[in-house]
Amino acid sequence: MKSEVRVFSPGTVSNVACGFDILGFPLESIGDEMIVRKTTEKGIKIKNFSDYKLPLDISKNAASVSALALIDSLNPDFGFEIEIIKKIKPGSGIGSSGASASGCVFAINKLMGDPFTIADLIKFAMKDMENDGMFEHPDNIAPALLGGFVLVKSLSPLEIIKIPTPDDLYCTVIHPHIEIKTAYSRSILPKDVSLVNATKQIANFGSLIHSLHVSDYDLIKTSLNDHLIEKHRSKLIPNFYEVKSAALEAGALGCSISGSGPSIFALSQGIDRSMEVEQAMNKVYSGTSIEFSTHVSKIGDQGVKLI
Amino acid sequence: MKSEVRVFSPGTVSNVACGFDILGFPLESIGDEMIVRKTTEKGIKIKNFSDYKLPLDISKNAASVSALALIDSLNPDFGFEIEIIKKIKPGSGIGSSGASASGCVFAINKLMGDPFTIADLIKFAMKDMENDGMFEHPDNIAPALLGGFVLVKSLSPLEIIKIPTPDDLYCTVIHPHIEIKTAYSRSILPKDVSLVNATKQIANFGSLIHSLHVSDYDLIKTSLNDHLIEKHRSKLIPNFYEVKSAALEAGALGCSISGSGPSIFALSQGIDRSMEVEQAMNKVYSGTSIEFSTHVSKIGDQGVKLI
Repeated sequence: MKSEVRVFSPGTVSNVACGFDILGFPLESIGDEMIVRKTTEKGIKIKNFSDYKLPLDISKNAASVSALALIDSLNPDFGFEIEIIKKIKPGSGIGSSGASASGCVFAINKLMGDPFTIADLIKFAMKDMENDGMFEHPDNIAPALLGGFVLVKSLSPLEIIKIPTPDDLYCTVIHPHIEIKTAYSRSILPKDVSLVNATKQIANFGSLIHSLHVSDYDLIKTSLNDHLIEKHRSKLIPNFYEVKSAALEAGALGCSISGSGPSIFALSQGIDRSMEVEQAMNKVYSGTSIEFSTHVSKIGDQGVKLI
Repeated sequence: MKSEVRVFSPGTVSNVACGFDILGFPLESIGDEMIVRKTTEKGIKIKNFSDYKLPLDISKNAASVSALALIDSLNPDFGFEIEIIKKIKPGSGIGSSGASASGCVFAINKLMGDPFTIADLIKFAMKDMENDGMFEHPDNIAPALLGGFVLVKSLSPLEIIKIPTPDDLYCTVIHPHIEIKTAYSRSILPKDVSLVNATKQIANFGSLIHSLHVSDYDLIKTSLNDHLIEKHRSKLIPNFYEVKSAALEAGALGCSISGSGPSIFALSQGIDRSMEVEQAMNKVYSGTSIEFSTHVSKIGDQGVKLI
């Protein structure tokens, strides 16, 4: 059995316009790297090799909290050292802590000879989400671990469904460097929504699932519309509607908020179109004082993987 | 070209638990029959060969209103006589007027050499739904005309999507002989619903669409749950929850209200199970003074057809 593995753990886009709290997909070209090795000493140790500050207290880092949940259930007579090379900026809205948690449990499972299923790993990785006392949906973790579009049907019992991913679907992400706390972004959502809007959302979500099954890009386009969430959360993101309009004018199939923001994602058919969309989104923030970064990525059908 | 056709136009179940106003499917073994023939005299004439009273005023019968919408757009120099052999009791909640409308426009289109697409026919057949001044969703008409599970994604523009129907899926319907006006059944629905319940419904609907694509009967079962509508409309249907419990105990995949009621439908895998479910539902109403009738049917992948 190996004593050290290196993994790539992808960033993820959750909510996906009409799939608030239930749909997500991984990015192929942006993610964290982690090296996890066995140590003779029991327990978990974290080392940060990133440009970003990360909590090194093992009770506060997403990776170690998940790792502890996993090893608590096996109680091995050795420990693990986790080197994190974080490439997803924390708080960006593309699943930074989800990537740490997913990568770490995946790596430790490998080092122990794969005793756990992906469903088990999702549960361990969800542990860290309880950190701030607020239960979070696994719509970042499940796609990071499973790959492709993933529908979180239910939390209790945990029901996770992998949906087919069309071959030619690409994602553009623009990340304005501002901070939005997930808890705040959730607190501004209304408790109630109109039955009319809920019905529109249900229809869009059903047709999105169908369109992914049959790779119908025209239908993906008309389905990627949110009637419940975007109008509230967009207030927290400067120039959101200009970015969205620019993306759609450049030919994106759809554009909305990634997770609870501030990142904005757009889906496109083909990498060329996705790069044109990147240019268009880019142009909007270039005219402001906001710092930002962008990514173009195929939607990975594989999630976290050994590298 | 033929001068007379005879058609079978199926009853339909709409809403389908988690698909309020957007999903429906046709029944194969219960539907209206209609004979439509060309007449030298212009216009539309209706004859009722049914056990049920039907409006013979052509401005008030679902069949003729739809027929008029169709012929208005072509203005032929002949007319049509429509004989209706209605087998779906009006007001039962399994698309009685939708069957009349769908069968009639389908038959006239055949007699004229198929000038219209199914999408056109759906629009003509929707005409009659404006009769009582309230716009209705085409979740009965579209499955009656297209066959199989049909998702009504949007009304304006009209977007209709045919979803795959698993081979071994059967429907049991029990129709208590009480009257519920569609308008009243709609009026008792709340204007707003909680975001939490809307999210559960969206997840169930998405996974139902996925489960139909992959013929996953276990997933169909856990998806067929409504969080928005049933609790309100069930109050109008005596013994609803006893019937539902009995159906589920007998092995149904799911059970809810058909359309706006009063019929209750249950889906099952296989005809044997569907007949056991019929017995179980039957037993509940047999213990009451309510008259009722039941049907067991395969879910037709073809809608209205020539016979």
